[in-house]
Amino acid sequence: MKTTGGQRRDIALSARVRLARNLKDLPFPGRMDADQAEQALARLSKPLLDGGEDGFTLLRLDDGNRLEARALVERHLISPELAGGGQPRGVALSRDGGLSVMIGEEDHLRIQAMGPGLCLTECLREAQRADGLIERQETYAFDEALGYLTACPTNLGTGLRASVMLHLPALTGSGGMRDIVAAAGKMGLAVRGLYGEGTEASGALYQVSNQITLGLSEEEIVSRVSDVTLHIIAREEALRAQYKQRRPREYEDRVWRALGALERARRLSGEEAMKLLSDLRWGVSMGDIALPLETLDTLLPGIQPGVLTLSAARPLRPAERDAARADYVRETLGALARRETK
Amino acid sequence: MKTTGGQRRDIALSARVRLARNLKDLPFPGRMDADQAEQALARLSKPLLDGGEDGFTLLRLDDGNRLEARALVERHLISPELAGGGQPRGVALSRDGGLSVMIGEEDHLRIQAMGPGLCLTECLREAQRADGLIERQETYAFDEALGYLTACPTNLGTGLRASVMLHLPALTGSGGMRDIVAAAGKMGLAVRGLYGEGTEASGALYQVSNQITLGLSEEEIVSRVSDVTLHIIAREEALRAQYKQRRPREYEDRVWRALGALERARRLSGEEAMKLLSDLRWGVSMGDIALPLETLDTLLPGIQPGVLTLSAARPLRPAERDAARADYVRETLGALARRETK
Repeated sequence: MKTTGGQRRDIALSARVRLARNLKDLPFPGRMDADQAEQALARLSKPLLDGGEDGFTLLRLDDGNRLEARALVERHLISPELAGGGQPRGVALSRDGGLSVMIGEEDHLRIQAMGPGLCLTECLREAQRADGLIERQETYAFDEALGYLTACPTNLGTGLRASVMLHLPALTGSGGMRDIVAAAGKMGLAVRGLYGEGTEASGALYQVSNQITLGLSEEEIVSRVSDVTLHIIAREEALRAQYKQRRPREYEDRVWRALGALERARRLSGEEAMKLLSDLRWGVSMGDIALPLETLDTLLPGIQPGVLTLSAARPLRPAERDAARADYVRETLGALARRETK
Repeated sequence: MKTTGGQRRDIALSARVRLARNLKDLPFPGRMDADQAEQALARLSKPLLDGGEDGFTLLRLDDGNRLEARALVERHLISPELAGGGQPRGVALSRDGGLSVMIGEEDHLRIQAMGPGLCLTECLREAQRADGLIERQETYAFDEALGYLTACPTNLGTGLRASVMLHLPALTGSGGMRDIVAAAGKMGLAVRGLYGEGTEASGALYQVSNQITLGLSEEEIVSRVSDVTLHIIAREEALRAQYKQRRPREYEDRVWRALGALERARRLSGEEAMKLLSDLRWGVSMGDIALPLETLDTLLPGIQPGVLTLSAARPLRPAERDAARADYVRETLGALARRETK
């Protein structure tokens, strides 16, 4: 995906637009038999693989490679639902990872476009482009009054889910997330903690997304998610500035110690690594620690259990995983840390 | 003091020999009036200041500069007792800091010689040399049967206290210090925690010293303290090797994280700094972290409250002191850390 990079990468890690589609002449995946699922996989991947320009490759996910599937989930390239089933299914990934088209999830087709920063408009354009590639060869289940038909009524209409991943350490620390979740809910948006249970986010990472897919245009949905996200970002920004001004040493100590621990630790639990990366990202995004944000954000999927196990190419005991996690983080930061300015 | 550097610096930070002496023709300091104290100060410092070769300078400690006195105590150059009183008193310090002669403490004269590592023999030679400088001009209180007379009977005879500062993190962590303290006691030696209350050592630092000054020659005392110290060192060494072999990741994580925190923290309490320096010194002394031990050992007095306040040249609130401590440690390590090998 060719994006201009997206905005507000200091707080918005990434954006994503997902379109749900179904073929007109096949039952929904939940009611397909294996032959139909195989047919859907072949027919829906063909236009993408033929496309050429995006360099799509198809990964089948019904071949029992649970580990690779888990790693794809942790990298947010596929959903846990797609990873979990036994029917013929797969994902077509573009060469640069910006497009991920899941085939045989809850709907026949889940087209996802993603990019760094608050780049929802670009993501929508990219998802629509992939959608167009397929629609030239296939006919979707569509109703003039309802719009695109989907397996679950919550996706009916546009079939669109626009979401942004936000890093909100100051809002989390100040206890302000409850108000944010409530206010977003009133606007028809959901705010959920990522890499954690419920709204309690590990690493202060949250996903903001629309709940309503019907009665609004794609552009209106994207615009609403962007607007609310910008409001949340402004609130986070104000709290960050306040904290830094009122407790400068506490702030500095926190963000720099996180770097020290990540640079030097020989074992890191997943939870501690998330906490430390969050603190470090805070310092980096404030311009106080000179490290590239992009590299930090690649560490995030890299420290997840499945990705670590996949890299090790063998089963890891918990202690070995904590060691591998520390090694991976330390080696990645080792080269970067020398570029810092203070 | 010109020493050859001393042995076992990995575990023995420093050694010290102290000789207690009193002038024959003056009452003990506790019974002197101000004129007599002034006379003792003048008469006992003169041979040292005349000596030339050692470059002695005399610091008076009855001039109300409490801060400087406190810093000298923290650097182990004078005793808290010398720092605390109002009578005329002072300390003569040799240019290289290897000799510290306190005048007007509990005894008229406390000659201290110190150096890095287990260098008690050199210390004894140096203390005896300074002792000789003074005895050429003055006559000590001496009894043929009892030896040198001292204010407190525990110093009677040789007036000698030989002590070694040891870093014993593995013995501390394994709970083995109780046995060490008991066994040393049976040999007439005391083992005390340093920079802490009672035997609970902050930073796993301990002082081993003789309790008996009577009935043994100076050389016998020094030899006994050296022998017991070498036994304690061997025990510490065995426990370190065991810990590293049985829990290599835990060991590595501990010593490297200490470096990370010391390199990066923006505030450090005295207690945390001692704990971290202890862990770091462990890794350095095992050869796993390539930093010069000497520099680490200069950090130890540098992080004490009085020394920090003296450096700041103004009163520091506790939060400011924690900030100054972190800054001092970070700046000292900053230059060194680039020399590490792994």
